[in-house]
Amino acid sequence: ETTTQDIEQLGINTVRILSADAVQKANSGHPGTPMALAPIGHILWSEYLKYNPKNPNWANRDRFILSNGHACMLQYSFLYLTGYDISLDDIKNFRQMNSKTAGHPEYGLAPGIDVTTGPLGQGFANGVGFAIAQKHLAARYNKPGFDLFDYKIYAICSDGDLMEGVASEAASIAGHLELGNLIYLYDDNHISIEGDTDITFNEDVAKRFEAYGWHVQTVDDGNDLKAITNAIRNAKIEISKPSIIKVRTQIGYGSPNKVNTAGAHGSPLGADEVKLVKEFFGFDPEKSFVVPDDVLKYYHEKGARGADLEAKWNDLFKAYKEKFPELAAEFELAFKGELPKNWDAKLPVFKGSDPKMATRQASGKVLNAIAASLPNLIGGSADLAPSTDTNLKEFTSFTPEQRDGRNFHFGIREHSMGSILNGMALTNGLIPFGATFLMFSEYMRPPIRLAAIMKIRPIFIYTHDSIGLGEDGTTHQPIEQLAALRVIPNITLIRPADANETAQAWRVAIEHKGGPVILIFTRQGLPILDQDKYTKATELEKGAYILSEASKTPDLILIATGSEVSLILEAQAKLEADGVSTRVVSMPSWELFEKQDAAYKEKVFPKAHKKRLAVEMASPMGWHKYVTDEGDILGMTTFGESAPAEELYKHFGFTVDNVVKKAKALL
Amino acid sequence: ETTTQDIEQLGINTVRILSADAVQKANSGHPGTPMALAPIGHILWSEYLKYNPKNPNWANRDRFILSNGHACMLQYSFLYLTGYDISLDDIKNFRQMNSKTAGHPEYGLAPGIDVTTGPLGQGFANGVGFAIAQKHLAARYNKPGFDLFDYKIYAICSDGDLMEGVASEAASIAGHLELGNLIYLYDDNHISIEGDTDITFNEDVAKRFEAYGWHVQTVDDGNDLKAITNAIRNAKIEISKPSIIKVRTQIGYGSPNKVNTAGAHGSPLGADEVKLVKEFFGFDPEKSFVVPDDVLKYYHEKGARGADLEAKWNDLFKAYKEKFPELAAEFELAFKGELPKNWDAKLPVFKGSDPKMATRQASGKVLNAIAASLPNLIGGSADLAPSTDTNLKEFTSFTPEQRDGRNFHFGIREHSMGSILNGMALTNGLIPFGATFLMFSEYMRPPIRLAAIMKIRPIFIYTHDSIGLGEDGTTHQPIEQLAALRVIPNITLIRPADANETAQAWRVAIEHKGGPVILIFTRQGLPILDQDKYTKATELEKGAYILSEASKTPDLILIATGSEVSLILEAQAKLEADGVSTRVVSMPSWELFEKQDAAYKEKVFPKAHKKRLAVEMASPMGWHKYVTDEGDILGMTTFGESAPAEELYKHFGFTVDNVVKKAKALL
Repeated sequence: ETTTQDIEQLGINTVRILSADAVQKANSGHPGTPMALAPIGHILWSEYLKYNPKNPNWANRDRFILSNGHACMLQYSFLYLTGYDISLDDIKNFRQMNSKTAGHPEYGLAPGIDVTTGPLGQGFANGVGFAIAQKHLAARYNKPGFDLFDYKIYAICSDGDLMEGVASEAASIAGHLELGNLIYLYDDNHISIEGDTDITFNEDVAKRFEAYGWHVQTVDDGNDLKAITNAIRNAKIEISKPSIIKVRTQIGYGSPNKVNTAGAHGSPLGADEVKLVKEFFGFDPEKSFVVPDDVLKYYHEKGARGADLEAKWNDLFKAYKEKFPELAAEFELAFKGELPKNWDAKLPVFKGSDPKMATRQASGKVLNAIAASLPNLIGGSADLAPSTDTNLKEFTSFTPEQRDGRNFHFGIREHSMGSILNGMALTNGLIPFGATFLMFSEYMRPPIRLAAIMKIRPIFIYTHDSIGLGEDGTTHQPIEQLAALRVIPNITLIRPADANETAQAWRVAIEHKGGPVILIFTRQGLPILDQDKYTKATELEKGAYILSEASKTPDLILIATGSEVSLILEAQAKLEADGVSTRVVSMPSWELFEKQDAAYKEKVFPKAHKKRLAVEMASPMGWHKYVTDEGDILGMTTFGESAPAEELYKHFGFTVDNVVKKAKALL
Repeated sequence: ETTTQDIEQLGINTVRILSADAVQKANSGHPGTPMALAPIGHILWSEYLKYNPKNPNWANRDRFILSNGHACMLQYSFLYLTGYDISLDDIKNFRQMNSKTAGHPEYGLAPGIDVTTGPLGQGFANGVGFAIAQKHLAARYNKPGFDLFDYKIYAICSDGDLMEGVASEAASIAGHLELGNLIYLYDDNHISIEGDTDITFNEDVAKRFEAYGWHVQTVDDGNDLKAITNAIRNAKIEISKPSIIKVRTQIGYGSPNKVNTAGAHGSPLGADEVKLVKEFFGFDPEKSFVVPDDVLKYYHEKGARGADLEAKWNDLFKAYKEKFPELAAEFELAFKGELPKNWDAKLPVFKGSDPKMATRQASGKVLNAIAASLPNLIGGSADLAPSTDTNLKEFTSFTPEQRDGRNFHFGIREHSMGSILNGMALTNGLIPFGATFLMFSEYMRPPIRLAAIMKIRPIFIYTHDSIGLGEDGTTHQPIEQLAALRVIPNITLIRPADANETAQAWRVAIEHKGGPVILIFTRQGLPILDQDKYTKATELEKGAYILSEASKTPDLILIATGSEVSLILEAQAKLEADGVSTRVVSMPSWELFEKQDAAYKEKVFPKAHKKRLAVEMASPMGWHKYVTDEGDILGMTTFGESAPAEELYKHFGFTVDNVVKKAKALL
């Protein structure tokens, strides 16, 4: 007679062999780690994880993150076995074109993948964002008797994850914020690509996490189901500290010749060795992709419990909706990614007669104007809230005591801020933003890219956007950052020219779907363009627009973004005075412009008018596309200098006279 | 009578007031931290640091790193006082155009600055590179009785430095490598820009560093000279562990209204408050930039000791040179940045008849061929030595036991690898390289940029350079990385087309000065271009060259880099067969090409021949400059996919047929 224990062990071994088979068939991938982690996966998907395979998007599901995404055959196996919309054929098509089962787990591609992972350390930090989001949703929506949001965040992470700085940053934040809803399992397998982890990694991981304020447990044997089960139970009980469970595993467990070697990590085991694995576990060595009926039934039953769980939750939500109709409606709207009606009613309009205003400052005014209408807009900065003007003044900070706080203090940890924002953005119902200086976007490019891949919409705010920041000098003055961000697929970068374009940039950012929005703001004050004199800033949504038309058919087109728009407007006046008919185009966003139809593009940049000068205090890379062979670019081709901004403008040629000179040289 | 103690305290207070004055005059900067750190600075420059102000480049000087570079008035003050080539006028010109005293300390601008700092965490990690370099130089050159290299690395770092992930990574490596030559002082001032550090940073820093294997001490009062002195003495004695000394300081010490507040951090104190500071320390509130004669004399005498120290060292080196002439000559050459004669004698030439070879593999062969001739070429990878082919097979690994090892295991810590390489590259006599996948260049952009700013030459090796890596998929396939690296000023990026261009790329990299070199290699095998049939790969040094000329005046110019060069060669054959006269340009490096004269550029890309197609499996950004308005670019405008490489080529159009089609469409 088959006991439950037998089935469990058979299930674990089935996953191991499925993983080895799939990697072998793909002739590419990572077999050893799923083989080591199958017992942990078994415990999670059969005992702890709260999920409904029929609705992977259930709001109160537990989140699962495979931070070591290369081990994805583990996840695909359990998703398939528990009844998600992943078939055995999908497993057989591992790593093939148009398959759901990509080489690393991809959000939106396979159901049940809560986040795209692969680049190490990211998943670890995304989990902190998920945990923050859960605490915040609970604080906003839960009511006595209505624990709408009580889910946990489970993750598996590797040595590599823990070596990456982004995970260190996130761990420190998680400990500080007392995120007791985090349950991380650390796959301590002692093996890295170059050999034993001891060649680079002999720090005391447990002590390090204790220093961060985590609850730390150790399991000596990754095959000890009881010990793992107990440790996870303890972790669930400990709700005031994030938990990490260090589990000593054996990479490639079951592979007689490759267990505990780097050889089991990143390549197929080899056809012969896979046969030996099957023999080791008592499977037929000649058959592949074998899933015993009992195993499938066992896990399907585990998965099927989720429908009941969700049904109960739906009842709870229904009752909640009757008692708290406004909150319920608010959540339902936000969950669908829709915005409250008239959310933008208070979007400010600034007057041309107002004094100069930095776009960072205008952004602060906009944020504070819309914050009340958008309860799900939350965010903060990497210790630069005053400088980036991102404090929501009428709201508190998110702390262990105040989970409803809407201002986040990420500390001087830009990279994990980005990854945490991704975790928050992946939680339906939230619009997260994060701010730092444009220069420090360089510290957080991996999460920006992942947001772009996942087509999720965190809002990244970058201020101090050029040499206009002045004295802080070379190390702080962005040069290549605009181009380096624009080149990322799926991003929308907006560099508004003044306070009114800033308001419109926020409108686009809030309404945007399908990728991150990057807002670029100045440190220095800028004139406010008179909305009665110039084309209205609402045109910003088209990416580029004729801000000030030439007196007659243009001899010249001047193009600029951000702070340089005022400069080319002044140059236009001079050029027109000198008889040069000059059009001024404000071009806050290349990406928005590229979405316009050909007729609109031709209207702004007529093919017949090739004398064009682009002016931007940044690397000229990419501008050739817009200025044509007969145009020119006034940009920055070197690093900056430490000096007051006005002197830098003179030094680098960002003066009206120089723009006029460069423009005339084209004629 | 003035006692030494009086002078010391007067010196400390002079530095505090100089700092406050300079920031006030610049109307920009960070006064509070130098005011807090003046006692530490005093102890370092008067007692511990081994330096000669008359030769800031002395090989055996102690290194000093101000990781919190914004506190640079501390460093400028002591450099001025001890007799470096920095005058009181330079101090008065703090943060002004063309001044040595930039807003953050800049290597090469002011004497005595060992490394440019500003972006937080970098200096911390650079120090680990300095420490590795010292250990390595000592292992290679020191002999019994000849401790040529016994210097220490001192650094001051801030809360912000310790929050940054890059510092966590570097700290773990330093502990692992037992770098007992590191002495770090942690400025524990409890203040960040958003308020008390407690709002984000309440981890147990001491315990964390113990977990990394560091020697940790605490000083409760940053004004307690004796306690600081003792702690540094203890740190010097502890030679098997890196040391960190946590010093509780008071930001803005001496400013009655701003001490211990964020208000003392990043803005001038205000003219009235500066007067109060002067009163607090017994200075005349009406006078600025006052340096008492006794103080100047005192520090000048401290600085002058350095000339004796260096003279003694020079004698030691002279004796060493007599006894070990070859080693001495080797070091002298390397110290000057020159290369051994015939270093490139063994640079391989690959045959067109050889089987396909990935450029990563060719690179491995080249590295191993030249390693013996270049004893100062050292490096490693971020746990990808086998995949990046960067192991120096005839040499050992750098470990606590083997400091002469030339292979470095950085662990899965790309960011700190970059910063550590910078520290190594700043140590005259070494040529460091570091490798990972091109995708993970994203984790290490801040140090790449700093290397470019400093014009130092680490060699960054990035393999797996396109969708050609295949199944690992979207998260691992570079798209925007080439453009995002090319846009950094002062870098030289080379993407060779085959094994022979790879050898030439290494030649350029080894001989290059004035900025980092970035080598881009494939995972997949590439045909070796027959050196008898095509233009020789030695032309790579020009950045772009006519690899295969058209049969007559070209109708078309095909341009490619790296793996796509073979593709356009095949397309050329088809086009020529179809009667389209086609030139093929291999363009491995935009930056090397831009250095050529106008005549050469015109030769390769004649203005009259505007029908040009660039082919690169990467973002098209930047290529418009080379293809003209009448050309086209076959690039990648989306993220990749997980599938075998050959299928990806078809899917994204990197086939001979599609190149031919795109090319013909231009005619």
